[in-house]
Amino acid sequence: MSKQKKVKNKRPKAETPKGFRDYFGTEIEIRNSMLQKITEVYNMYGFEPLETSAIENVDALGKFLPDIDRPNDGVFAWQEEDNWLALRYDLTAPLARVYAQHQNQLPSPYRRYTMGPVWRNEKPGPGRFRQFYQCDADTVGSANMIADAEMCLMLSDSLEATGIARGDYVININNRKVLDGVLEKIGILDLTDIKNFSEQRGIVLRAIDKLDRLGISGVKDLLGKGRKDESGDYTKGANLSDGQLSLILSFLESKSETNQGTLKNLLNLVSGSSIGEQGILDLEKIVESTELQGYGVDRILIDPSIVRGLGYYTGPVLEAELTFEIVDEQGLTRRFGSVAGGGRYDDLVKRFTGQEVPATGMSIGVDRLLAALESKKPSNSTGQGPVIITVMDRNRLNDYQLMASELRRAGIRSEVFVGNPKNFGNQLKYADKRNSPIAIIEGENELQNGEVLIKDLYLGSKLASEMKTNNEWKSQPAQKTVSRRNLVIEVEKLISSYKN
Amino acid sequence: MSKQKKVKNKRPKAETPKGFRDYFGTEIEIRNSMLQKITEVYNMYGFEPLETSAIENVDALGKFLPDIDRPNDGVFAWQEEDNWLALRYDLTAPLARVYAQHQNQLPSPYRRYTMGPVWRNEKPGPGRFRQFYQCDADTVGSANMIADAEMCLMLSDSLEATGIARGDYVININNRKVLDGVLEKIGILDLTDIKNFSEQRGIVLRAIDKLDRLGISGVKDLLGKGRKDESGDYTKGANLSDGQLSLILSFLESKSETNQGTLKNLLNLVSGSSIGEQGILDLEKIVESTELQGYGVDRILIDPSIVRGLGYYTGPVLEAELTFEIVDEQGLTRRFGSVAGGGRYDDLVKRFTGQEVPATGMSIGVDRLLAALESKKPSNSTGQGPVIITVMDRNRLNDYQLMASELRRAGIRSEVFVGNPKNFGNQLKYADKRNSPIAIIEGENELQNGEVLIKDLYLGSKLASEMKTNNEWKSQPAQKTVSRRNLVIEVEKLISSYKN
Repeated sequence: MSKQKKVKNKRPKAETPKGFRDYFGTEIEIRNSMLQKITEVYNMYGFEPLETSAIENVDALGKFLPDIDRPNDGVFAWQEEDNWLALRYDLTAPLARVYAQHQNQLPSPYRRYTMGPVWRNEKPGPGRFRQFYQCDADTVGSANMIADAEMCLMLSDSLEATGIARGDYVININNRKVLDGVLEKIGILDLTDIKNFSEQRGIVLRAIDKLDRLGISGVKDLLGKGRKDESGDYTKGANLSDGQLSLILSFLESKSETNQGTLKNLLNLVSGSSIGEQGILDLEKIVESTELQGYGVDRILIDPSIVRGLGYYTGPVLEAELTFEIVDEQGLTRRFGSVAGGGRYDDLVKRFTGQEVPATGMSIGVDRLLAALESKKPSNSTGQGPVIITVMDRNRLNDYQLMASELRRAGIRSEVFVGNPKNFGNQLKYADKRNSPIAIIEGENELQNGEVLIKDLYLGSKLASEMKTNNEWKSQPAQKTVSRRNLVIEVEKLISSYKN
Repeated sequence: MSKQKKVKNKRPKAETPKGFRDYFGTEIEIRNSMLQKITEVYNMYGFEPLETSAIENVDALGKFLPDIDRPNDGVFAWQEEDNWLALRYDLTAPLARVYAQHQNQLPSPYRRYTMGPVWRNEKPGPGRFRQFYQCDADTVGSANMIADAEMCLMLSDSLEATGIARGDYVININNRKVLDGVLEKIGILDLTDIKNFSEQRGIVLRAIDKLDRLGISGVKDLLGKGRKDESGDYTKGANLSDGQLSLILSFLESKSETNQGTLKNLLNLVSGSSIGEQGILDLEKIVESTELQGYGVDRILIDPSIVRGLGYYTGPVLEAELTFEIVDEQGLTRRFGSVAGGGRYDDLVKRFTGQEVPATGMSIGVDRLLAALESKKPSNSTGQGPVIITVMDRNRLNDYQLMASELRRAGIRSEVFVGNPKNFGNQLKYADKRNSPIAIIEGENELQNGEVLIKDLYLGSKLASEMKTNNEWKSQPAQKTVSRRNLVIEVEKLISSYKN
């Protein structure tokens, strides 16, 4: 191609591919510390770590049909000989593969947590990246509702461990079986042939899932004749009859202030549908277990409008919602929304082994939770940098390095300025960019007197912003001369004053 | 394709793609703890973290020509519209991109550490994986040799922090400029036209790099007429004259017991070559700095045979070698070998900006270092599992969960058995697979007496392996009955006895 020839020998552009980003300094430290707190909770509940490779065989990820030429819908995939490889798009599909592969060696049930990046081949947008972190916990091989209850407890503990205050979040739970009961009652779920009405059911579930965004009247349109949005786009409706519609609406309005109240309302609606009644029983067990352990409706609440995806979950589902308000990019006040979710998925391992293996789990959206914590309580975005030993005389680098060495032995993070020392101002600029608390200066005068100059950069910049006159500047209260042999002690004092 | 049709509807295989693996439980904890120790050292020296995305534009990685149809040589790459994307194959190429992209915002010099997986599209082999961890530190924007000296210090401190004892490793250093000096002296480096003799130089450098493996006589063959290996394969030689050959051999034999001795020998060889003399001066500065800070030849040693790659490094190079012996897969005793390396690479950012930016860095091969630590001092491969509260009566799950809840509040990792409780033996098998220290049992009898049974599983398995008779078994000294209200205190006592 001539176009390709033309770009030959051009310099490559220094940029991340579209939809990807870099993370620097303190933001990495803050994320790692948050993940550390979450995994301590997971660990305390008995879960153990697992780390799978980023790359899987495409068919193990299980989103694709073998006769599609290029399975690039939603994943990053490429061909290797007869095989397609792909980057994982979540942490659950690899878990299913691991469980099927190592079943005989793993404890049963298998309880693992995992964290790491996942990749989505989607259109990037503002704040929407194609690589992001997830942090998951799952119990594979347990059909017991206490495993689901535990997910709620762990998620609640995890959020509080990261600094989300009680009252600023709620774990909403629901059960797909209760929903199925409602669908059965209105005659669009036929358990003898699941394919019947499946399109209509899809429309109903998607409509319920939009309750938050469209409100009850928008959902009503979608359940009925369809809906035209503001742009004029038309979305097909489920064409439910008035009777059907009214049952769904009662379902959506069955939420009460106590979980027992909600369960009672729901039972009225699904009574007679055995799948629906089973769903109620399951929710009862979960709520009984969590309330007994002291987790009340301020933390764990049944919400019938929670759907969470269409083809995936088979039983209880949960979603952590942050309830405090933030001001969004458009200047509008809104709730922060969902930061984690999960539920029971009993069919995932079956794809590999043919055996049905009951499993339940949850996933925390790490970047969203970080954004929430940041919007709630903005951190000082730069952490404390190292002590900088400036270079006044480039022939005495070894002396300066000995200072750094002494400071490090005392546990004080420090470095000699290793750039070009010619312009002293650049050295102070560097210290400033690193957010260094202290610069050490040892010029000719100091050397002759056996002294060093300690510059308190935090105080210095505070004073600089307050002082108006040159005379004030001259008093230089932000620096002091100390004996060279007291260097470590004096620096230690100053650093510890910044820790309080 | 009919072949493709046939495999349709087959179950996917539950396996990692060739050359990839999963990591479980304790091995992840051990690695994370090792990485934590290394990054604490990096941090103490003033470096800050950076994390780039796994995916880069292929041309930013810089290994490929734009007219090659598919750039899959060594990297995992795929096409996206007009663009090729690829997984990073190391952590240095992304650093160069980041520096070129964010130069104006970053402090100068920019000192960062980073760790994470990298991917190589190579033929997998035993113990040879296509995804592995690296842990790097680099200083970009400093031409000063104290930045190179610092890499040696940090690497030495890092190895010792992970548990490699002093004396069990050595950091070998060399300088590509000294090598260039030797090549100039024997007339195969023409600094006015670097392309001259480049093929011959390549053969010489590769030959030197093989000294470890082939010994001096093998290297001699490669420098002369060429070499036939055991399989009969012939490798072309550099066709050096006797005079040229003898200078290279003197160079390889110039290593002395003191760094000063080696430098003296090297200076004799390259004297008159200005690039060679500059190389000596640089090494002198490094050694002066490291020795002054107390790092002697037992830790940092000049070794003229260190080459480390061909087209990449432009100045000092370093390599950490573990000197203790291990028994390899063939039952042969050998040195463990290299676990980390690095050096100065002044041209990497130039590809993007046209500007030459001096940089120096190093990379620790995380998996190799882990393997070394494991071969030196095998760890108990399973860490302590959680306390397991067994389920004797499935109607009393809530009581069992309250026990777990109490234990966790006291900081004791614990869980209720959430699998099928029918077969009690399976519950104990589970506890065994998790390496649980303790199982709690509360059956009908215990409940009536307000008691619980605490089973010490570690002691139990120790006794089981020692005891011979049924009578001994019956005394069951590995379990004791305690009052239910003393559960936490008794478990705490037992757990803390295992900590000592």
